[in-house]
Amino acid sequence: MRGGPSAFAMEYVWEEVTLTFSRVPMFPFFDIAHYLVSVMTLRQQLGAVAVAWQNPLVSWFSAMMHCFGGGILSAILLGEAPVKFLENNTNVLLASSIWYIVFYCPYDIVSECYRFPPVKLLAAGMKEVTRTWKIVGGITHASSNYTDAWMVLVAVGWARAAGGNVIVSLEQFLRGTWKPETSKLLKMSYPVKISLVGAVLFTLQHSGTLPMEKHSLMFCYTFFIVVTKIAMMLTESESSPLTPFEIMLGRMLFGFWQNDPSSGPCKSSFNGTGTRSKPYSIHVEAKRRHTKKTE
Amino acid sequence: MRGGPSAFAMEYVWEEVTLTFSRVPMFPFFDIAHYLVSVMTLRQQLGAVAVAWQNPLVSWFSAMMHCFGGGILSAILLGEAPVKFLENNTNVLLASSIWYIVFYCPYDIVSECYRFPPVKLLAAGMKEVTRTWKIVGGITHASSNYTDAWMVLVAVGWARAAGGNVIVSLEQFLRGTWKPETSKLLKMSYPVKISLVGAVLFTLQHSGTLPMEKHSLMFCYTFFIVVTKIAMMLTESESSPLTPFEIMLGRMLFGFWQNDPSSGPCKSSFNGTGTRSKPYSIHVEAKRRHTKKTE
Amino acid sequence: MRGGPSAFAMEYVWEEVTLTFSRVPMFPFFDIAHYLVSVMTLRQQLGAVAVAWQNPLVSWFSAMMHCFGGGILSAILLGEAPVKFLENNTNVLLASSIWYIVFYCPYDIVSECYRFPPVKLLAAGMKEVTRTWKIVGGITHASSNYTDAWMVLVAVGWARAAGGNVIVSLEQFLRGTWKPETSKLLKMSYPVKISLVGAVLFTLQHSGTLPMEKHSLMFCYTFFIVVTKIAMMLTESESSPLTPFEIMLGRMLFGFWQNDPSSGPCKSSFNGTGTRSKPYSIHVEAKRRHTKKTE
Repeated sequence: MRGGPSAFAMEYVWEEVTLTFSRVPMFPFFDIAHYLVSVMTLRQQLGAVAVAWQNPLVSWFSAMMHCFGGGILSAILLGEAPVKFLENNTNVLLASSIWYIVFYCPYDIVSECYRFPPVKLLAAGMKEVTRTWKIVGGITHASSNYTDAWMVLVAVGWARAAGGNVIVSLEQFLRGTWKPETSKLLKMSYPVKISLVGAVLFTLQHSGTLPMEKHSLMFCYTFFIVVTKIAMMLTESESSPLTPFEIMLGRMLFGFWQNDPSSGPCKSSFNGTGTRSKPYSIHVEAKRRHTKKTE
Repeated sequence: MRGGPSAFAMEYVWEEVTLTFSRVPMFPFFDIAHYLVSVMTLRQQLGAVAVAWQNPLVSWFSAMMHCFGGGILSAILLGEAPVKFLENNTNVLLASSIWYIVFYCPYDIVSECYRFPPVKLLAAGMKEVTRTWKIVGGITHASSNYTDAWMVLVAVGWARAAGGNVIVSLEQFLRGTWKPETSKLLKMSYPVKISLVGAVLFTLQHSGTLPMEKHSLMFCYTFFIVVTKIAMMLTESESSPLTPFEIMLGRMLFGFWQNDPSSGPCKSSFNGTGTRSKPYSIHVEAKRRHTKKTE
Repeated sequence: MRGGPSAFAMEYVWEEVTLTFSRVPMFPFFDIAHYLVSVMTLRQQLGAVAVAWQNPLVSWFSAMMHCFGGGILSAILLGEAPVKFLENNTNVLLASSIWYIVFYCPYDIVSECYRFPPVKLLAAGMKEVTRTWKIVGGITHASSNYTDAWMVLVAVGWARAAGGNVIVSLEQFLRGTWKPETSKLLKMSYPVKISLVGAVLFTLQHSGTLPMEKHSLMFCYTFFIVVTKIAMMLTESESSPLTPFEIMLGRMLFGFWQNDPSSGPCKSSFNGTGTRSKPYSIHVEAKRRHTKKTE
């Protein structure tokens, strides 16, 4: 009987902590962090400050795309009104205020503060927390209409969490400031990948396949993405913690004939951006040379 | 008591006139003017006549985008069917007939007639009248679903009145005949700006903030845009009557630190296309030089 | 009374055959043929195999666009959820399996088999059969909401049958692997044209204008498109059987003033891609020369 009560207490504490965590409201602080990180991402783009001074309305529109892109994309995917995000006056005004102080504050006080590492880390960590809430929100919303269609749930959860990247790319493409070569569609970035993993996990949990409570999964997933994000920012490394899993999955699904010399392109192992294999690098280098020549 | 009955009569006449005006049906004549101006805009584009002779279906599709673009964009924003405009058989057939006679009439009779200034002025003036009706229609339609979301009302009213420009740009972009440099998204044209002002005014009226009757506002706004449009066409000037307000608003919102030498890009005053400030012109010239070199 | 019973028997047989034909389920075999042809079209594109090995998820996404593009476009046109196709788990898994074996099968067994002409002809013929079912399905689906709007029915029927081409072009355009010059939007391909004809015919039948039973029309239309497709594949000719009708229609609608020397561009007869008239070829050649120079 030794350790029984203690294990029970541990479990109780864990239950309490994760339940409390899953009830944390996003509204004022986490949303502010998300808007701040999104608008700062916009500001760090080439020419964004000049656009803000020449045509504030376009800059405001871009900022809203950065802040609410995920919601817009998931609304489009579900055939709902893309302007629905404007219904929430408070959040739009909050995001607009942050856009205003980031771009027009005298002496760039906000940008200077944002450069201070602890502020940046805190904001980035809090933004990652909103990612979990978005995935859960997207899946819950989609499941009211598409109960059994687990692929729809994954798509909507993913779109709400990572769709901002897609919408922003599209918007920049239409404005002419983005070239498809640098496409995030083709080279999936780490946030896009981790959002997909999250959407799959929460969909499995929703359909009852994953033997885990929702609040526990929320806690674990959030813990993982926050720690990973902060670790990646501190070490400034580009290597994603998903790479080993990707390689394993790639070998399982597509790599049976890896060592078969007859099957031409199979020599390159399965990898997206994580680990650049030789053929890909050669291709990129050839492109760079070509670009240099034309310049 | 002097002037009392006269003032009362004046007010009565004003009430009568504006009420009658607000009940003018758009259907045959104003719609024809709108379709005529839209299709003539298409015809004056480079290569449009050649496309019409080589592939009439594509030309017809472009003409429909020019005529019904605003309705399509507002339907997309509200998550409704973009093909809804095809439901109104009469209007589509009317627009198609105008497209047909504009492009295929022997000896280009219609285009020649359109060059005659009074015809052009009348058509342009009548087209501006439809703008008011579109803003009001968009706001009324959106308010049935989104009562309190005033930002949604502004967005839908604006999209219905000025969305044609956006849809047409997108369509030309996809066809490869439009470069993002000349984007109307970035350099908002005068019709786009005045539609935004109208959408804001009618939304304020709708929510009861503006102490004015709907029909009076319709009369005043229409009067203003028609007179402005005709004046701009007669004087062939590009300067918009909104420029002073824009500069004032810009100074109020973004220009506190105008004369502060430390805040770099703030030197350029707030202005879109209206008044080209120095930094912008320099940028444009630099671009032109660069383009010449690469050629 | 001679011939009476025989004619009756013939009619009965015809009725039986067409009715039985119209009840053939698409699910396993015809759908497989459609997915196979669509994925093979993707595979034959330049660089598609390399993308499949470097980033399987993007390749899978492209394959789904090729297989379900028509359904996605018609859903967008009707303001429904574009992800609705994911609801049908079985079909998505079937299409995914075909994508998997086409791209990753050792020794490219599937691609090699597909090169064998009878297989190719059979698959192409069966794919054409699904076209009829898609047009009928689209019109039936749209008519539940838009009963009298025959233009909406045509648009949705056409979009479901030929929309894959449009969605795929858009997707390639956004990925940067497609130039608008080769646009299928401007030069309508034969499948796009024949789908339009089919959509018009079935809409006429639906509204009761065409004195023909639905199942007879399905049989005749399918017979026509299958025979035409196989004949075109066997003779490897590019000339479409619709060209004479197009020229006739063009003369009727746009060609009254053909021989009138005063009406400049009218000299070129009405023709899309079918018959390349002189002015168009000259334009194309001039373009080619220009391209060479810039290279």
